[in-house]
Parts: sequence; C-alpha cells; structure tokens
Amino acid sequence: MTVKLFRNARIYTPVDGGRPAAGPDQGKIRHFERGALLTEGGRIVALGKEEEIASRLNRRPHMEVDCGGCCLTPGFVDPHTHICFAARREKEFELRRAGTPYLEILRQGGGILSSVRAVRAASEEELFEATLENVLSALSLGTTTMEIKSGYGLDTENELKMLRVIDRIRRETPLDITATFMGAHAIPEEFKGNGDGFVDLIIDEMIPAVIGQGIADTCDIFCEEGVFSVAQSRRLLEAARKAGLKLRAHVDEVHDTGGAALAGELGVLSAEHLLAANDDGLRAMAAAGVIADLLPATAYSLRKPYARARRMIELGVPVACATDCNPGSCFCESMPFIFGLAVMNMDMTPEEALTATTLNSAYSAGMADRVGSLDEGKSADFLLLDCETPAGIAYHAGVSPVLAVYKRGEHVA
Amino acid sequence: MTVKLFRNARIYTPVDGGRPAAGPDQGKIRHFERGALLTEGGRIVALGKEEEIASRLNRRPHMEVDCGGCCLTPGFVDPHTHICFAARREKEFELRRAGTPYLEILRQGGGILSSVRAVRAASEEELFEATLENVLSALSLGTTTMEIKSGYGLDTENELKMLRVIDRIRRETPLDITATFMGAHAIPEEFKGNGDGFVDLIIDEMIPAVIGQGIADTCDIFCEEGVFSVAQSRRLLEAARKAGLKLRAHVDEVHDTGGAALAGELGVLSAEHLLAANDDGLRAMAAAGVIADLLPATAYSLRKPYARARRMIELGVPVACATDCNPGSCFCESMPFIFGLAVMNMDMTPEEALTATTLNSAYSAGMADRVGSLDEGKSADFLLLDCETPAGIAYHAGVSPVLAVYKRGEHVA
Repeated sequence: MTVKLFRNARIYTPVDGGRPAAGPDQGKIRHFERGALLTEGGRIVALGKEEEIASRLNRRPHMEVDCGGCCLTPGFVDPHTHICFAARREKEFELRRAGTPYLEILRQGGGILSSVRAVRAASEEELFEATLENVLSALSLGTTTMEIKSGYGLDTENELKMLRVIDRIRRETPLDITATFMGAHAIPEEFKGNGDGFVDLIIDEMIPAVIGQGIADTCDIFCEEGVFSVAQSRRLLEAARKAGLKLRAHVDEVHDTGGAALAGELGVLSAEHLLAANDDGLRAMAAAGVIADLLPATAYSLRKPYARARRMIELGVPVACATDCNPGSCFCESMPFIFGLAVMNMDMTPEEALTATTLNSAYSAGMADRVGSLDEGKSADFLLLDCETPAGIAYHAGVSPVLAVYKRGEHVA
Repeated sequence: MTVKLFRNARIYTPVDGGRPAAGPDQGKIRHFERGALLTEGGRIVALGKEEEIASRLNRRPHMEVDCGGCCLTPGFVDPHTHICFAARREKEFELRRAGTPYLEILRQGGGILSSVRAVRAASEEELFEATLENVLSALSLGTTTMEIKSGYGLDTENELKMLRVIDRIRRETPLDITATFMGAHAIPEEFKGNGDGFVDLIIDEMIPAVIGQGIADTCDIFCEEGVFSVAQSRRLLEAARKAGLKLRAHVDEVHDTGGAALAGELGVLSAEHLLAANDDGLRAMAAAGVIADLLPATAYSLRKPYARARRMIELGVPVACATDCNPGSCFCESMPFIFGLAVMNMDMTPEEALTATTLNSAYSAGMADRVGSLDEGKSADFLLLDCETPAGIAYHAGVSPVLAVYKRGEHVA
C-alpha cells in the first residue's frame, strides 16, 4: 500500500519559504491540533486538518495510522557531525574533566590526532561498524538526515576511506546522508609547523582525488588560531568551490579570528560553532544568508558558555542546531538533547528550536529541497513524539520523547 | 539455575562502610578491570577478579553471562521522586519558559495545586497506569530502586490512595520501592492562610490513617517561605517520628530558612534540594550524618544555579543525587542524565557521582542494607553500561549508556 494516512496527530512543522528561516521567521510554525498527513510513495502529498485530508482520499484504498494524539514533527536533520570515527576517547574525557592540561593529554595519546591514528589504523569494515552503531542510535533518537564529515584521515588515502564509509552509511541505512570533505580538520604530525604546505597538499592532491571519487558534497575547514588562518581558509574554500564542492566552515569557536566575516564574504552554506563571533561578523552572515550551526552539546561537554543564539536571531542570522557528534569534545548523537539545550541553555523558543533542528538544519545540509519540513513533495520523514507540543521535547528533561521514526513514509525505528 | 556468574565485566562499585560515604569516602570506589560477579538466588555471593571468582565455583553447575567487557555498576537508586502523578504539565512548562508570571500560571490552572486536582480526579487505576509508565521508563534507564512520595492528594482519602498506588508499583514491578508520605507538600485550597490548621489535620488525622494503612516508610515536608515554616516542620516531623515513620525534608530550596540546620537537629535521613543552604546548616547536617539529596535536573529545568555539591563534600556532608521526577518543576526520570549533570554542572568526580546515585541514595532511601552497592549479601541489582568506566556515563552526553538492567539477578530491562 503506497498511500498512507497518518491521522489523529498534533502536527507541528516549519514552513519552507524557499530559504533558511531567519529573524521572526525562525519561530514560525504551522500547526494542526487534530491533523493528518497523507503520503504516497514515500513523499508528502498533503497535510492539514484531519477531516479535510481524509476527504481528499475519495474512497481510494490506503493504509491508515492512528497517531494517538501524539505530536508529529519533521524528522531531525543533524547538519554537523564527525560521527565517522574509529575509537571513543572516554579516558581523555576524564582527564579533561579532572583539569589535566591539554599538553599532558596529548602526551598521554589524546587529542584529535589520536582519532587520526585510530582511523588510519582501522580497516574500512571496522570504521563502518563503529560509525554504523552511532548512526543507528541517532536514528532511534529521531535523526532522519545527517551530515557526516571526514577529517580524521588527514591524508589522501584515509580521507577517501572515510568518505567511502560515509557513502556506505548512506547506502545501507534509511537515513539521508550528506558527506563533507574535511581534510582541513587539523594539521597532521607530518606537516607540523607547515600549515601552508598542508593546505597545498589538500588543494593539489586531496580535492582532485575527492572530486574523482564523487562522494563528497561539501568542503569544510577548521578556521581557528593555531589551526588554519583566515587567509588559508579563504584559499582552500575558494579552491574547493572552483572544484564544485559546496562550502561550510568551523569559525570563531575559541577565538574571534574574523571567521564569521569570512563565512559571510564567501557566502558559505553555514558557519559552525561561533562561540566567539563578533556582531559585525554575524551581520555579514545575515546579509549573505549564511546559517549559524550552533552546537550546544559541545558547550555542555566542554563546560563553556553557549553561543549567543538570541543575538543571532535578533540580527537576522538563520540558526540551525547540530550534535557535533565526535569522540573528543562532544560524544552526543541525540537531537532531542540538543533541542533541550537550545531551549533551556540558549533561550530559544521551542518553535525556534524546531526550525533550528529541522528546516534550517536541512538548508545547512544542502538538502532542504527534499527534507526538513512537512511540505508537499518532500520526503515523508517524520517523528511521533510522546508530547503534545514541541515544547514537550525540552519539558521531558534528558529523556528522548521519540516514539516512532518514519523515513520516506516507512516506520524505521 | 539460581547460581549465575557474570564475567568479563569492568566492575565499579562504592563500598558500603556501614554509613553514608562522606568527604573523601564519597569518591572511594572498588574496581576490578576484568571482574566477575557471582549471584545466587538473586543475591550477591562474591565479586572480584574473574579468575578468583570462577575458581570458587568448584564445578558447581551455574549459568554464565559474558558481559563483553562492559562497565558493570550497581543499579541506580533514585531517592527522591514525585513520580506518582496523574497528568503532565507541559503547557505550564512553556508558559514558565516564556516568562509568564507565576500568578498568571496559577490563574491559567497551573502550579502544584493543578496536580492535586488531577490526582483527586483520577481513579486509582488511572493513577497507577500513569505512574507505571514513568516508573518503567526509569527502570529502562537503570533505576532499580526508587523512593516515591505522596503529596498530590493533600487530604486523607487521596493521600491514602496515592500510597496504595505506590504500593501497587512496589508489588507489580521489579523495582524496590520505598514510600514516603508527604501530606505536607503544599497547603491545599481548603486551608489557604491556615497552615497551622493543615498541620493539625496531618498530625491528628492523616498520620494515624497512614500508619493504619501500613504502607509508608517515611514522612517528608516542604519547609520553605510561604509553605511550611521551620516551626511547623519541626512539629510535624516530630509527630511523624513518634508515630514510627522515618524522616526527610525539603529544605532551603528557594530561601535560606534554616532548614538544613533543622535537618541536622532532627537527624533526618536526608535533606532535599538545599540550593540556598548556608554553611552552618551544612555543618549541622555533616555532624548528624544527614544526607544531602541534590536534584540537579530541577536546577536545569528551572534554569537556576546548581546546589553547591563540592562545598558539601568538603564539609563532610554525604551527597546523594535524585531525579525529583515530577510534572511541574522537573519531568525527568533518567538517572544517567542526573549523573551527567552531577559531573558536568556540579563538578563532582564520576566516582563521587556513582556513590551519590547508588550507595548514598540507598542510605537516603533507607534501604542500604539491601541495595546500593555490590557487597556480598545485598540484592544482585546491577547495570551493564556501554562504557569503560563510570566517567563514560557523563562522556556520552544526553544519551543513556544502559545496555541491560538486572534486578535480583534477573534481566529485567
């Protein structure tokens, strides 16, 4: 039966206005208190009041799901993850928590380069299995679309390996996946003190190889003091754009290096982190329609202040929220937890948080044409939640409200 | 098969020294990196290094569980819940988040008295079903022992009804339950402006009826400005003690009314909340061995500062942590989330947090003779966790690491 009627649902969805929702639009939500969703062949055909939608069926055979009065929202889109990794760093977490200096953590084998060593040492199968476990956990927590970055290979061979694993996740799970090439995630041991040389390698060798492999959609870079400078970031991102990749960038996470302004100047899809971004940079992003990808669980895990979500919304920057799932600074694949932190610790309204975790994050992932809202023609990706309104996701503190996950109209978790 | 060997486990447990663990003892944990646990008839017979425990079996027939190298800890003991309630207050959460004044929330039918109306209106069966759902969720999140309070009845009939529901939860779920009579949770409409009269009713009518019913183990009161004064609390708690009930008290949550000092003076089992408690009060608690029951998810949900856990440990107050699960200020039944908040937002070490959520919380619940640590003779209540050490519970932010829950040696969730 390809026609399905999901009725008796409290439907809440952002409305796709053809661009990321910013300012007052961030909190604009369509709501049907006793609503229904009609799908066919995995796509949304209609949504609205139950009686209106039901009348459209006109005796056509269909399957019917009584949603029991549950809240029905779009599936979460997680637009920023490093979930493709080979080994957790639980011991490092405990060292950091106990106040161990970063250099000592490095001496004991921790830090991002330990993830690079683990990915390089892992077989493609091992890396796939490790990634799959966390991706399926995310799916059970309501994530139906996910961005996944490479960036723990840091050489051509291992970056290509990561992208193949990400592609296999795309093929072998129900999720929609967008793959980001992030060779510029850190400077590997081999290029210590020679960031320019590493950027050359990425531009001259890695990007052509990544394009040749045909998996990556987007290119990302960690623009930060002591990692890649604004000048290096501009050079790399321009080369990636020329090669046909979409762009995003980690900017102003720890220090204000002018990364937000660069993001605005280049008109990237989204700028990530932004804990230290200044207002001028945010204004440049707003003017260029660049999405702010905020990562509140990273602030939580690192015990840092949260990004200034309210100020960004005030300035007209479209805000998305993501898990940043990674083995170092933030081992979290739960979008309900992100939603809770957005509301409780970044003072966003539940409506703004819903847009941030669905529609705007779909734009950030470059996939808003297909997912991120319950608009006609989009993929029938949605959740049944154990609450009455999106506020309930934050109300039930620290517990996932996800009762059922539907992807392309199919019950997948 | 009543003899069971759980092997290949990373075992972590507090050690029961015959009293709540305080000061440096709060963080003392027994650890076996490749450990085993031997149980018989639902009780712990031995634990230690795998080879030593296995050798004790001496060819005796037994069932064997390979724990796959998982972390094995005692089941969580949640020593402070109001989980017996009839209706959620999701709408009120959203009003509060949006800054609606408390009086306006009351006008719209919110506040604790709305939970009283809901409990009074609910049948015993309805109240049981609503409670059961959240208790089973807590069990799946690793809670094997739970304290549950009455206190949404506020008249004799409905307080007794709540206690019967709590008793049915005890009989019909695998959890160990301790029941707390909390007629003094708020002043009901009928006694507005007449707190002393309501205390009289509790002492003269409710306590004898509660004792007659034979279900409640403990008596609790909300000692706070505008609710019950220190004098009223002393009077009520002394009467409850005389009647044979153990004591606990909500003190110094919002204002420092000297409640901690009262808790020390009376030598109650535990004092709850303590956000505003002063050092003298904490010293009185330490001297009397009164446990501080801290409720970090309530601070999270109300966006308030957290209790001063580090200072309490420094002063020698034994610290326990609980969910405070209730429909108003904190809808959270997840002890892994509580553990995470204890570590991330109250700066406790993972070892201190483990003691706080198992052994000390078992003392707070008055059940440390049976549960709360993996000591010989205690109930075989334990968890298999998807991590290597207790730190992993906080490391995996916002996601439950609970893979399996064992109660009295049986796999129950």
